[in-house]
Amino acid sequence: MELLDGQLVSRTIKEGLRLKVAQLTAEGRKVPHLAAVLVGNNGASETYVGAKVKACAEIGFKSTLVRLDDDISENKLLGIIDDLNDDPDVDGILVQLPLPKHISDEKVINTIHPSKDVDGFHPVNVGKMVQGLPTFISATPHGILLMLEHYKINTKGKHAVVVGRSNIVGRPMSILLSSNTPTGNCTVTICHSHTHNLAEICRQADIIVAALGRPEFVKADMVKEGAIVIDVGITRVPDSTRKSGFALKGDVKFDEVAPRCSYITPVPGGVGPMTIAALMKNTFLACEERNGATQI
Amino acid sequence: MELLDGQLVSRTIKEGLRLKVAQLTAEGRKVPHLAAVLVGNNGASETYVGAKVKACAEIGFKSTLVRLDDDISENKLLGIIDDLNDDPDVDGILVQLPLPKHISDEKVINTIHPSKDVDGFHPVNVGKMVQGLPTFISATPHGILLMLEHYKINTKGKHAVVVGRSNIVGRPMSILLSSNTPTGNCTVTICHSHTHNLAEICRQADIIVAALGRPEFVKADMVKEGAIVIDVGITRVPDSTRKSGFALKGDVKFDEVAPRCSYITPVPGGVGPMTIAALMKNTFLACEERNGATQI
Repeated sequence: MELLDGQLVSRTIKEGLRLKVAQLTAEGRKVPHLAAVLVGNNGASETYVGAKVKACAEIGFKSTLVRLDDDISENKLLGIIDDLNDDPDVDGILVQLPLPKHISDEKVINTIHPSKDVDGFHPVNVGKMVQGLPTFISATPHGILLMLEHYKINTKGKHAVVVGRSNIVGRPMSILLSSNTPTGNCTVTICHSHTHNLAEICRQADIIVAALGRPEFVKADMVKEGAIVIDVGITRVPDSTRKSGFALKGDVKFDEVAPRCSYITPVPGGVGPMTIAALMKNTFLACEERNGATQI
Repeated sequence: MELLDGQLVSRTIKEGLRLKVAQLTAEGRKVPHLAAVLVGNNGASETYVGAKVKACAEIGFKSTLVRLDDDISENKLLGIIDDLNDDPDVDGILVQLPLPKHISDEKVINTIHPSKDVDGFHPVNVGKMVQGLPTFISATPHGILLMLEHYKINTKGKHAVVVGRSNIVGRPMSILLSSNTPTGNCTVTICHSHTHNLAEICRQADIIVAALGRPEFVKADMVKEGAIVIDVGITRVPDSTRKSGFALKGDVKFDEVAPRCSYITPVPGGVGPMTIAALMKNTFLACEERNGATQI
């Protein structure tokens, strides 16, 4: 069993980007600039946005954190996004979700210009991903592909079972793993809350992507010997033995599943750090696309 | 075994639309208008476009057939599409594929305004379909869903195996059948040329969608007793016993598979006619969306 070490791979990718940015700076060219919009002060959102801003600093990207009160009107928020769309210095825009209930996620996402949509949530970018056209692939699925690539895992002809059909993880993973690409060409089964005999289906899998958000749902008896297990879940569960009072658990019962696997991602330290690396890659790409042609 | 009669369902849908158009006409309102663009004179394309124009006439839609020489420049074609985009009388635009090699399908499709893209091929419409937002679903998958709906086939929790991952059939079918909708909620396995043990996977299926374009590929020993089989293939194979010199074959070996099925589509007369009905529905919808608000 080998651990898929998201910390390590993420560091490697970020280091690669840092060198590229250093090169841009040495040449007097514009460096990538990510604008993050945070509405309200949800604890988890603060943490996620903080990690993204920190990653920008490490790599040498410029970042702008736009903090807004949670009673901001939808129109005002859309206006702020329009300003970021129009700002020639800004390459990538991300709006941290979830948003307050009075604001439509859909409207906000659709307002971000597709060429700055580094989260890859705009329908036109999702459509391009489905059609195999170059685009921004959203951070979690993109991060998982980067991890498979790093560990040179051959996916071709493998049977991948994706548990969960969310727009941000399960659905795009099922599409990407079955696409005709070097990290695709799997036979893919997508499962969800209406799936019967889930355990039986999982037992057929060469690759399991667990993205349902139920801590320790995937047990040893659902996993074939030698399978590759990608655990996307991350849930706080009460744990009185810890000072924080909670432990972070994935969707996979790691202790009993890991011994059966050829590869498995830990939680934390697996998929999580990869999402940041993927976002950084997208931001760099956005900068290249936007400025490449006009730079010397 | 019951036949899924595409001719019958298509007629029913078209008759429903005809009555709605008669109502619009009686009220002195605008009727739906489909513009079809045909480049060159490929025999199959002529047939397909002809069938679409004929369906418009039957229902009472206005249609415009724009015939262009196959040496038209890409720019000129894009200009013609722009004119159709700007024409307030035109509700839906379809460009019959394939196009001559010197013209990019992608550029042409992306030039059609998404609100007139009744074929549902524009990335923004594909993205909306993935995200479960209201949009134009492309004709073949939409037609299959309309057929499932007509026959009140309960898809929830069924295991659907989609053979083929094309952008126009296999891929969207796999997404739609696994979406959280009345004709979705299947567990879906998507298979393709790199799939191992395809027969074994097909034998698990409650629903098989065969969309690989290989005549009579799906044999009886690949189909579970009681399965629902949707045959999307339609290939001309030589047949000296027929006056035309060819027969139309689906991707399913009908004679031996049909007795095992609860439902099966014939070829021809199954999915084919449904694609026309679906296109007509999309055109009606486009007209409603575009003109609804401004009509009395």
